[in-house]
Amino acid sequence: MDSKVSQFVTDASEAESMAKSLSLPSVNHLLPHLVDSAQSLARPSISNFHVGAVGLGSDGRVFFGVNLEFPGLPLHHSVHAEQFLLTNLAVHRCPRLLSFAVSAAPCGHCRQFLQELRLSSSVEIHITADSGDRKDAIFKPLSEILPNPFGPHDLLGQETPLLLESHHNRLDLSTLNDASNTRNLCNGNSNVEKLSNGNCEKHDFDEALLRKSALEAANSAHAPYSGCPSGVALMDCEGKVHRGSYIESAAYNPSLGPVQAALVAYVAEGGGGYERIVAAVLVEKEVAKVKQEDTARMILKAISPKCELKVFYCHSAKN
Amino acid sequence: MDSKVSQFVTDASEAESMAKSLSLPSVNHLLPHLVDSAQSLARPSISNFHVGAVGLGSDGRVFFGVNLEFPGLPLHHSVHAEQFLLTNLAVHRCPRLLSFAVSAAPCGHCRQFLQELRLSSSVEIHITADSGDRKDAIFKPLSEILPNPFGPHDLLGQETPLLLESHHNRLDLSTLNDASNTRNLCNGNSNVEKLSNGNCEKHDFDEALLRKSALEAANSAHAPYSGCPSGVALMDCEGKVHRGSYIESAAYNPSLGPVQAALVAYVAEGGGGYERIVAAVLVEKEVAKVKQEDTARMILKAISPKCELKVFYCHSAKN
Repeated sequence: MDSKVSQFVTDASEAESMAKSLSLPSVNHLLPHLVDSAQSLARPSISNFHVGAVGLGSDGRVFFGVNLEFPGLPLHHSVHAEQFLLTNLAVHRCPRLLSFAVSAAPCGHCRQFLQELRLSSSVEIHITADSGDRKDAIFKPLSEILPNPFGPHDLLGQETPLLLESHHNRLDLSTLNDASNTRNLCNGNSNVEKLSNGNCEKHDFDEALLRKSALEAANSAHAPYSGCPSGVALMDCEGKVHRGSYIESAAYNPSLGPVQAALVAYVAEGGGGYERIVAAVLVEKEVAKVKQEDTARMILKAISPKCELKVFYCHSAKN
Repeated sequence: MDSKVSQFVTDASEAESMAKSLSLPSVNHLLPHLVDSAQSLARPSISNFHVGAVGLGSDGRVFFGVNLEFPGLPLHHSVHAEQFLLTNLAVHRCPRLLSFAVSAAPCGHCRQFLQELRLSSSVEIHITADSGDRKDAIFKPLSEILPNPFGPHDLLGQETPLLLESHHNRLDLSTLNDASNTRNLCNGNSNVEKLSNGNCEKHDFDEALLRKSALEAANSAHAPYSGCPSGVALMDCEGKVHRGSYIESAAYNPSLGPVQAALVAYVAEGGGGYERIVAAVLVEKEVAKVKQEDTARMILKAISPKCELKVFYCHSAKN
């Protein structure tokens, strides 16, 4: 884990040390103190309104969330800091979010997105904009700022896994040798090379790895409402792979697309500018009520013009 | 106004008559009684979860809102009943929403969208799912279900017009004779003809009217956050024009795109299946941080495959 990675995820022991060094009684009290640092990592290219969220996971780790905006696209493609935070927990397989501090009052869209968590009503929230310089860690449960919610309990059985809960969608790829199963197939491997000026060109990469990563992401997707899971794997010009799982909301619109989820991983894992993303694979079902392909293509064209997207169709595994 | 139109907008006098005929003390008490009718008009093609909202405008008219979903597209393109309701008021130039009844608890996304109204916190809401068969019109203000909101007051001055408030974006079309200003220009007029089986083919239509309607829609758009207004005009196979103005949210993601706004008008004005939409014009700025063109094309390709979309660029008028 390099230094950039650790900006977005802090180990439990390190978080405890930080709290002690500031004479704070707990890591929970530390969260508001880290909000400024999170804000500085935001990428709000349209609004210039930096939002930072800092959350405590049930395993003691501390996670950052920041907002991302994408010029040239409609605003519904934006990723809010709270969405980034939850996706960051999902990427790092943290099973539960206990509390978070955030720089501005969460919008309704984010309060809704948080409903996808088991015991969402008890997630404790501190808004630093309301507390000024005090940072005295007054937390309120989500239920106080989104009373009488619409959520998973309105649509799903109790046994259905919710966001961050372990599950496997049992998807497999369709016959790979059938070219009709892929779109925008390139001719063999592409080439990615890092130039001395820091820009990237293509050189050999392991397409099978990218495809496998996207399938794994689709298998972890949270899509209980539509039954149309999907996953994306992105490769940067250094050959690093960043993957993201589609996250659905009971209220539909706050759902986070698989490209956005993979961009969260890219940013959280120390990624630089989006133009450094050179290859991408999307895995989704061929016949589905919710399809991501055209949207994935549109987003990547706008932010990563050199990126080549391939789409592979998956189906439910027989076993 | 034909009978289908009147399903979505009821005149003040008719609404009063309906309340009296049910021995209700006010039109406000009537709203919960109409929710079932609104629900029956919803088009939730993915979820099959019908949502109906019935609102009272300050001019005494009663407006319906229903949810719309679009198979084959990501879920963020869905229109919620509350969004439909507000857009319906905008289309019919009603200056203020006083109250509404809705079949299910509004999701956070919708509570956020409602923040775009002046005095949003005092909009009174009745949730019929909570009241069962009583329909005794217990209304709660929005502030009770979205306390401590993030909204326009966080980003805009008091003088900036909010949603439903009269304003004009002072946009004009760029030089029309310059073909580079249009995309997907067809060669002269297209042809739309209604066939005896109810299906449509193209026959002569007034392209200038469609362009003018889209410009007017862009001039009414609510885009104070990005400064990138846009408007869409759709023409159905009978030559009727339906227009929609882009509606932005302070929280970005709940923003309603101009195609969705025009689809609200299409449905509210008695439109049938989306395949009956045969021509569309989008007006937006050529250089803008928020661009709708690719998304408009993607939505129309999915739901109205015969529709030809033209894009015209606008600029700020000199006077």
